[in-house]
Amino acid sequence: MKKISYLFTIVILGFASCKDENNSVSDIASNSETNHPNLILTKSGVEKIKSQLGSIPIFDKSLAKTKEEIDAEIALGIETPIPVDYSGGYTHVRHKRNMVALQKAGVLFQILDDEKYAKYVKDMLMQYEEMYKTLPLHPKTRSYARGKLFWQSLNDSNWLVYVSQAYDCVYNYLSEEERNKLETNLFKPFADHISIHSPQFYQRVHNHSTWGNAAVGMIGLVMNDQELIDRALYGIKGVDLDKTAKDDDGGFLNKDGKAGFLANIEEPFSPDGYYNEGPYYQRYAMYPFLIFAEGLHNVKPELKIFEYKEGVLLKSINALLNLSDADGDFFPLNDGQKGMSYYTSALVTAVDISYHFGTHDPGLLSIASAQDRVLLDDSGLAVALGIKNGKAEPFNKKSINLSDGPNGKQGGVAVLRNEEIELVFKYAAQGSSHGHYDKLSFSLYEDGEEVIQDYGLARFVNIEQKGGGNYLKENKTWAKQTIAHNTITQNEVSHFGGKYEVGSKYHSELYFYDDTNPHVQIVSAKEANAYPGTELHRTFAIINDEDFEKPFVVDIMNVNSESENQYDFPYYYFGQIMKTDFQYTVPSELKPLGKSFGYQHLWKEAEGKPLSDNAKFSWLNHGKFYTITTTSDATDNLILARIGAKDPEFNLRPEPAFIIRRHAKSTIFASVIESHGNYSPVSESAVNAYSSVSSLKVAYNGENYTAVKIEDAKGKIKMLLLANNGTSNKREHILEIGNEEYKWLGPYTYITIN
Amino acid sequence: MKKISYLFTIVILGFASCKDENNSVSDIASNSETNHPNLILTKSGVEKIKSQLGSIPIFDKSLAKTKEEIDAEIALGIETPIPVDYSGGYTHVRHKRNMVALQKAGVLFQILDDEKYAKYVKDMLMQYEEMYKTLPLHPKTRSYARGKLFWQSLNDSNWLVYVSQAYDCVYNYLSEEERNKLETNLFKPFADHISIHSPQFYQRVHNHSTWGNAAVGMIGLVMNDQELIDRALYGIKGVDLDKTAKDDDGGFLNKDGKAGFLANIEEPFSPDGYYNEGPYYQRYAMYPFLIFAEGLHNVKPELKIFEYKEGVLLKSINALLNLSDADGDFFPLNDGQKGMSYYTSALVTAVDISYHFGTHDPGLLSIASAQDRVLLDDSGLAVALGIKNGKAEPFNKKSINLSDGPNGKQGGVAVLRNEEIELVFKYAAQGSSHGHYDKLSFSLYEDGEEVIQDYGLARFVNIEQKGGGNYLKENKTWAKQTIAHNTITQNEVSHFGGKYEVGSKYHSELYFYDDTNPHVQIVSAKEANAYPGTELHRTFAIINDEDFEKPFVVDIMNVNSESENQYDFPYYYFGQIMKTDFQYTVPSELKPLGKSFGYQHLWKEAEGKPLSDNAKFSWLNHGKFYTITTTSDATDNLILARIGAKDPEFNLRPEPAFIIRRHAKSTIFASVIESHGNYSPVSESAVNAYSSVSSLKVAYNGENYTAVKIEDAKGKIKMLLLANNGTSNKREHILEIGNEEYKWLGPYTYITIN
Repeated sequence: MKKISYLFTIVILGFASCKDENNSVSDIASNSETNHPNLILTKSGVEKIKSQLGSIPIFDKSLAKTKEEIDAEIALGIETPIPVDYSGGYTHVRHKRNMVALQKAGVLFQILDDEKYAKYVKDMLMQYEEMYKTLPLHPKTRSYARGKLFWQSLNDSNWLVYVSQAYDCVYNYLSEEERNKLETNLFKPFADHISIHSPQFYQRVHNHSTWGNAAVGMIGLVMNDQELIDRALYGIKGVDLDKTAKDDDGGFLNKDGKAGFLANIEEPFSPDGYYNEGPYYQRYAMYPFLIFAEGLHNVKPELKIFEYKEGVLLKSINALLNLSDADGDFFPLNDGQKGMSYYTSALVTAVDISYHFGTHDPGLLSIASAQDRVLLDDSGLAVALGIKNGKAEPFNKKSINLSDGPNGKQGGVAVLRNEEIELVFKYAAQGSSHGHYDKLSFSLYEDGEEVIQDYGLARFVNIEQKGGGNYLKENKTWAKQTIAHNTITQNEVSHFGGKYEVGSKYHSELYFYDDTNPHVQIVSAKEANAYPGTELHRTFAIINDEDFEKPFVVDIMNVNSESENQYDFPYYYFGQIMKTDFQYTVPSELKPLGKSFGYQHLWKEAEGKPLSDNAKFSWLNHGKFYTITTTSDATDNLILARIGAKDPEFNLRPEPAFIIRRHAKSTIFASVIESHGNYSPVSESAVNAYSSVSSLKVAYNGENYTAVKIEDAKGKIKMLLLANNGTSNKREHILEIGNEEYKWLGPYTYITIN
Repeated sequence: MKKISYLFTIVILGFASCKDENNSVSDIASNSETNHPNLILTKSGVEKIKSQLGSIPIFDKSLAKTKEEIDAEIALGIETPIPVDYSGGYTHVRHKRNMVALQKAGVLFQILDDEKYAKYVKDMLMQYEEMYKTLPLHPKTRSYARGKLFWQSLNDSNWLVYVSQAYDCVYNYLSEEERNKLETNLFKPFADHISIHSPQFYQRVHNHSTWGNAAVGMIGLVMNDQELIDRALYGIKGVDLDKTAKDDDGGFLNKDGKAGFLANIEEPFSPDGYYNEGPYYQRYAMYPFLIFAEGLHNVKPELKIFEYKEGVLLKSINALLNLSDADGDFFPLNDGQKGMSYYTSALVTAVDISYHFGTHDPGLLSIASAQDRVLLDDSGLAVALGIKNGKAEPFNKKSINLSDGPNGKQGGVAVLRNEEIELVFKYAAQGSSHGHYDKLSFSLYEDGEEVIQDYGLARFVNIEQKGGGNYLKENKTWAKQTIAHNTITQNEVSHFGGKYEVGSKYHSELYFYDDTNPHVQIVSAKEANAYPGTELHRTFAIINDEDFEKPFVVDIMNVNSESENQYDFPYYYFGQIMKTDFQYTVPSELKPLGKSFGYQHLWKEAEGKPLSDNAKFSWLNHGKFYTITTTSDATDNLILARIGAKDPEFNLRPEPAFIIRRHAKSTIFASVIESHGNYSPVSESAVNAYSSVSSLKVAYNGENYTAVKIEDAKGKIKMLLLANNGTSNKREHILEIGNEEYKWLGPYTYITIN
């Protein structure tokens, strides 16, 4: 590896010297000296901030808190220990804290004009310079691209993204000699290490690379080093990676040979701003995307970075905010840690930048208010002024459909919303190396609480005791597998056989999405490749019907296959079982449900058979009652399962599932999911504790149409009628069921019969 | 049954006619007409309230809410269905709602002078009169004392307690003829049914009887029927029950032959105000105790009911408030449903009455403010004025030790508190029929969150789907058993063999309690009868030591036995396992831990052996890290278990336990329980994720002394030294351990050695 790195260095230096021909080094230095800060803070911005200080509450508060934090750090003294630990360990945490302290101290120096902050930055940078110039690779060997300060180049890149900002803030405070020392011994070799010495990390389309690109680009902007800036924007020139090689997570290193910041915008974002790995990684990638974009906007306005790909960076912020529940927690699609929310600091950056460089959406101000802090820069000032001037409005999340894929042609993710009910439907592409095998899966929320969960990842991020804070092996054996999700598993094998290479070739297809009717929010998609020979077509509707207490969900999963298969169809609920209308038996000893593809991790707690053509399953969670009513076949097995088998280190959460198992060729699973009533342990009264669905029937299912009939507790009949081909809103459909003829326009209709 | 009731009636009527001699019926009527309302509302009180309306925010708000609620009820119309259902069913819920609506409408009539409320009360009462006069016993047969409106006389009594108040409010609005009709056909027979026709319910010391007594007494006060009042205060004259008979819950019907309201104050309350069944049932019993007391205070001031037994009724409110966690949730000792809190309406009554008739404790006003409502009577007015006048202060809960037993000589319950840490230690008597076999058990809380839980009851109160909302069979097979609690089970048999008759004979003994040292809150108690031949002595201390991040718990369980036994010692934690310093294996199939005494309900999820003389067990819950460090023996089995085996209807919560199993004669279990650090899924940073205890040793354990030595992560040595005999604070103790001599005064000392 070392030998290769050396060769890269030579090549790149060759380029660099060419670039410098038209601009002497002294020109750049004097030119840039007058202009610093210019990266995130700007000279004029700092003046505006200073003139408003004391009259912009949220900004003043953010500044005071930052000052308090950094004053405490300064009091504790500077520590730059020799790196030894994985994530969560002492040296890791210390260097991570240092990078933030440096960035913040730099900002404080600019805004408060207090030299102690500049000195702190300078002193710490000099300690890093002293250490770095002889620092070997980090001693921990688990990463595919080891860093020097941290065990992976990814964290080194994080560091440089922050420290570039600090350097910019103290640039003019430092002597030219000091700058040369830092640039020669620290920044330049640091940037080289994470790029030309780590091409397997840097030269890709991947969230890791985005951090690398931003790091190299931002230090390049401060140093006014065009070669670094170009390397950031376009990747390392002349480097091609093995297109079949894979990284730690099983993702291809560089299948298409694309690299650099612009490619990293181009590839993972759909035109709607959906990020292919899902919201958790988008949140993580967001900071380098936006902070580097802000730097580029300030230093290289001619690039018009915020207009790139029709303004996708700002669109992506809107998409990301819409991929959060009522509490602002991101939906844990693919590898996502639950609890991550728009209160994370990356989203403060995102919201402020989106407001300032976008359309001044007043909805963003209410999120910024809830975040209760702003960036200490021009964008934070804009937000603080907006809030101060009473411009904030609620950020109303409505149903949204987001395409996936660079051109928006690779399926997508839809979020249906009605009152407190939110349903997330995933019919996207694989989602890069962080994707799960969960075609047509869904999760359900009520007022920010999970009702039917997406498990998310199997990892305790940064908790060292749990596998060094990294991905646990159960992420592959459980969390990514199909049976861990609320969708069909056929014959106890995951979608695409659980093979990343296969899954990456395909995506589901939107059939239709319609949020125009306030009573029926609906989405429908098809998946033809997860199991060759089997077609899945799933439709979700949230129906707001005055005969029901709350909006309810209709879930129709149509399965078409020529061959007989076993279909397992789970609902991962939370809470305690209240009642089932089927009988089940519990075993005296628990055994796992299967041997592989995640089945080995499920205990079978009970098994039963339907007593009628409906099966009802009710539970209580957080004071609310829920019921699934599903059409059932006499031969169905109704399984109650719990996660936790074959889990020798208790890495999994022991949460339950209700699984419908059916042996069939083509079949249909039609279900209604209701939230109803409530129970308070204080008043001890149970209100509306029973389902309002008295029966559910598939009234028709054919190649062209599917119809389900719901009878409510008062005997009223409701029907949802779907056309399975032809989604034009103008097309008239006619369907005869029994002696009744139903006519409607467009792909669906919902009617009350009596 | 019917025949016996008839006999009782004859006898009682005999007494009644004697009593009436000095007071002609017409005298009473005219006398009382001028005085109504006089029970809870008083004529003068109503005038005061009216004069303040509009200027007492919390009262005005409570009134407006009540008005809104009752106006809606009136609009819906009156329904008094023929009773058919158990708790949670329609007729049960309807009659329960009616009783509250009647009471509130009565109050509204008095305060607002709007006749529509009086008419509503009259009309509904007349419907009840019409129905009741021919109403048979409730058709559901499960109760030991069936009611008529409800399946149990208990609920009938609830009804009459409320409806008496309504009757008082409309007394003067009704004609004498109407009153006679109601009293003759409804109130008198109603009172007779729950008392002389249901002696097995009425003639006891039990929370059920308290409701019965209050119901009879309150209607007696309104009707000015001295015979009913006497029956309420002293029980049914001349009735003796079989002293060996038992009720549905397994409690004795009437072991001592005591009965009546005064006996119900005398017996279950200790002089400190602890109620022997625990806070959940105290909360339930509180309302009839206090509302009847308020009525007696108003109508029969000469009884000085609030001074009875040295003011124990008001003391009991203070005790109850102190038996709640930081969020106001009552500790679920014995049969207690979690989540019941001082926000329940019975506690609004308790807090308002305690303030008004007690010492005007300003701390109560802050609880009333949090409750956000007051009683619509004189006491509510007093509270509203107190709050309005800015007198509210925080209700500071400190460590408290509450004796149990009528004379305070039957053990007790201690709550140790230090900063956010609360520890509840139960060394009480059996706790009547709702008691659990949990001698020397404890539970631990941090800032209102359960850390080490008491399971509480196995019941979904009023949720009809779950066993009619009544006690589930798992309450006996699991929740009451010793292994369900954080204390020692010997040889897989519950304390007292799980026999109520045996358990009721004994209680644990306080050894000492000391909350005078802010750094060490400590309690110690002994139990000699749970297992004949085995003595248990447990000491808990919460230690606030500057070398630790937060106060930590020391738990010392000394077991003395001549014979070899198996001791199982569980800690019911919550959350996910982070790390253990012992190795364990997980089985490929789960089996129950045992066959009976609750063991049949535990799955054995893992088993291991200590690797050293300490075993460490760490977990994460709600963003906080916790560690138990315990002294271990090489032959110990360390078991990880989960509740849920043999639970055919999923009535139990599948929660985990860490169980130390040891085979020994005499032995000591010494443990430190720490809460440390935190983890945020938003910042993804883990702070102080490791225990600060590097080793724990029993430095000395003999007949007279026990000493434990804690070495912290920085090598500092701490010692807790206990005298096992002699608790005088003036007694000097000298203990030599190795070459060191330790001297201290009083039963314990805590020292830092270096």
